[in-house]
Amino acid sequence: MAETRHDVVGIGNAIVDVLAHADDAFLEREGLAKGTMALIDAERADALYGRMGPGIEVSGGSAANTLAGVASLGGRAAYFGKVRDDELGRIFAHDIRATGVHFPTAPATSGPGTARCLILVTPDAQRTMSTYLGACVDLGPEDVDEDTVAASAVTYLEGYLFDPPRAREAFVKAAEIARRNGRRVALSLSDPFCVDRHRDALRLFAREHVDILFANEVEILSLTGADDFQGALDMIRGTVPIAALTRSAAGSAVATADAVHEVAAAPVARVADTTGAGDLYAAGFLFGLTAGRDLATCARLGSIAAAEVISHFGARPETPLASLIHGI
Amino acid sequence: MAETRHDVVGIGNAIVDVLAHADDAFLEREGLAKGTMALIDAERADALYGRMGPGIEVSGGSAANTLAGVASLGGRAAYFGKVRDDELGRIFAHDIRATGVHFPTAPATSGPGTARCLILVTPDAQRTMSTYLGACVDLGPEDVDEDTVAASAVTYLEGYLFDPPRAREAFVKAAEIARRNGRRVALSLSDPFCVDRHRDALRLFAREHVDILFANEVEILSLTGADDFQGALDMIRGTVPIAALTRSAAGSAVATADAVHEVAAAPVARVADTTGAGDLYAAGFLFGLTAGRDLATCARLGSIAAAEVISHFGARPETPLASLIHGI
Repeated sequence: MAETRHDVVGIGNAIVDVLAHADDAFLEREGLAKGTMALIDAERADALYGRMGPGIEVSGGSAANTLAGVASLGGRAAYFGKVRDDELGRIFAHDIRATGVHFPTAPATSGPGTARCLILVTPDAQRTMSTYLGACVDLGPEDVDEDTVAASAVTYLEGYLFDPPRAREAFVKAAEIARRNGRRVALSLSDPFCVDRHRDALRLFAREHVDILFANEVEILSLTGADDFQGALDMIRGTVPIAALTRSAAGSAVATADAVHEVAAAPVARVADTTGAGDLYAAGFLFGLTAGRDLATCARLGSIAAAEVISHFGARPETPLASLIHGI
Repeated sequence: MAETRHDVVGIGNAIVDVLAHADDAFLEREGLAKGTMALIDAERADALYGRMGPGIEVSGGSAANTLAGVASLGGRAAYFGKVRDDELGRIFAHDIRATGVHFPTAPATSGPGTARCLILVTPDAQRTMSTYLGACVDLGPEDVDEDTVAASAVTYLEGYLFDPPRAREAFVKAAEIARRNGRRVALSLSDPFCVDRHRDALRLFAREHVDILFANEVEILSLTGADDFQGALDMIRGTVPIAALTRSAAGSAVATADAVHEVAAAPVARVADTTGAGDLYAAGFLFGLTAGRDLATCARLGSIAAAEVISHFGARPETPLASLIHGI
């Protein structure tokens, strides 16, 4: 097998986040389900933005956050995702490259603008997301560079990519290239509503292509149809070689056919904003895995990365994560 | 004298901030003087942005931050400033209106894009700013709405407005309307280099038009040419009715012809980013003044507002400031 050039390559919806504080009454008036992601059109995005409070703009996108985390940990990261050649697109491209991630995808020169995600953070630090996919609908298999995938130890895919129509083809193409080259494929389920929208396709894809599955408790219950966490864990062990299941403050469980490793969450003085917790858990986990660490250590690295990102506003690390993992 | 419709109306450069962490070596390589603001052209802005780390975008502009602070304290605020009709301009307009500030200025429909300020925050929490003025050069006296100024208890001007060519005319027009209507005029000196660039004009303007002057220690030394703080304070007392002089952690001194009030800084658990400290001090001070409070209380309100904004990244309040001043 050829040497790797990247530890992880990710494919995802390339999105700029707009974060604002909001109270529960606002979510209720807007008909938003707390803690989840809803897809919205351009008109609804404008209307909701007009009513929400002052925001901060920060590059986001689930897999993009993960790859920024891998780079921040010191890993070699690459990312495919589609922006438009507009101001938000330039911001997205600058930020991911400035983090050290190889980002070769050409921006769209026509069509809808760069995607944005309106994130409302409630006083309990939960985030509720409304995403306008914009230019992400233009991502297709032509954006998956075969050489990059072939040279990456892990290809990481976000479940959200099942939403825009042609991204799924990109998804399958990347998984097949990875498999042909003896590389591993990781999938994050992203969101329970996303699982609801694409359950059968995600189950099939997981069974056929996935070596490492990331999910939180609600997502794995939704995927498996199990009644409780233990049931879901038992079911998923037969489907994928490694399942890394996160349970917020209760830590995570990593299940293989042979064993289950339970790892505590890393301590956080004050949770400011849970945006990006799952994305950064995946970053730490995959960084560990590609460095040859054991699964329990991978989960600890995931917990440390997640703890950093929930301690402040925004879904990308503020502190270089490599400085937080000395001695681990 | 007619009733007021606004407590404070501000005029300033309407800017979106791009904040990123940087180390001292980076500032040195880029030839940047720590803690100050430098004007840069579009080409330099692109080059510097290309080399700096991942950023967060947040609405800024010195006077705009002040007016957002006045609104956050519960005051009635208005603002004039020029953006372009582009994405950053829409972000700026949304954020200031979402804070509750009346913002009537029409965006430019041609010419340079919305202004941006590249802010590098070093590990000591100091901020170093490089500003591309963009659409701000289009602000002129035609943007000063006479009715709004006439109906505002205080007209607040940032010294940075002496940089773009026609803004100074707007500045003088606003001051004259305020004076004719028996209102007060406040001026912030903004930055020591800005004072260096426009010393004579600022001295003349202060003497002819200004009722309340805001400056930090370096700025007042630069304006007066005095050797030490006491000397500067003595000189400025003869020039303006009220001088509010800030000294970072050493608090502030408010000087009138009759008295000097010294007020301690409000405590901050951890200073994260000093961007906006002076802007928010002015917000608290003017909120107090227009509510009829004594000068020492105005200074305390300024200190509380400044303490909030330096405790996090970005130059606008995260916590509604009205919640921090109960019982004062």
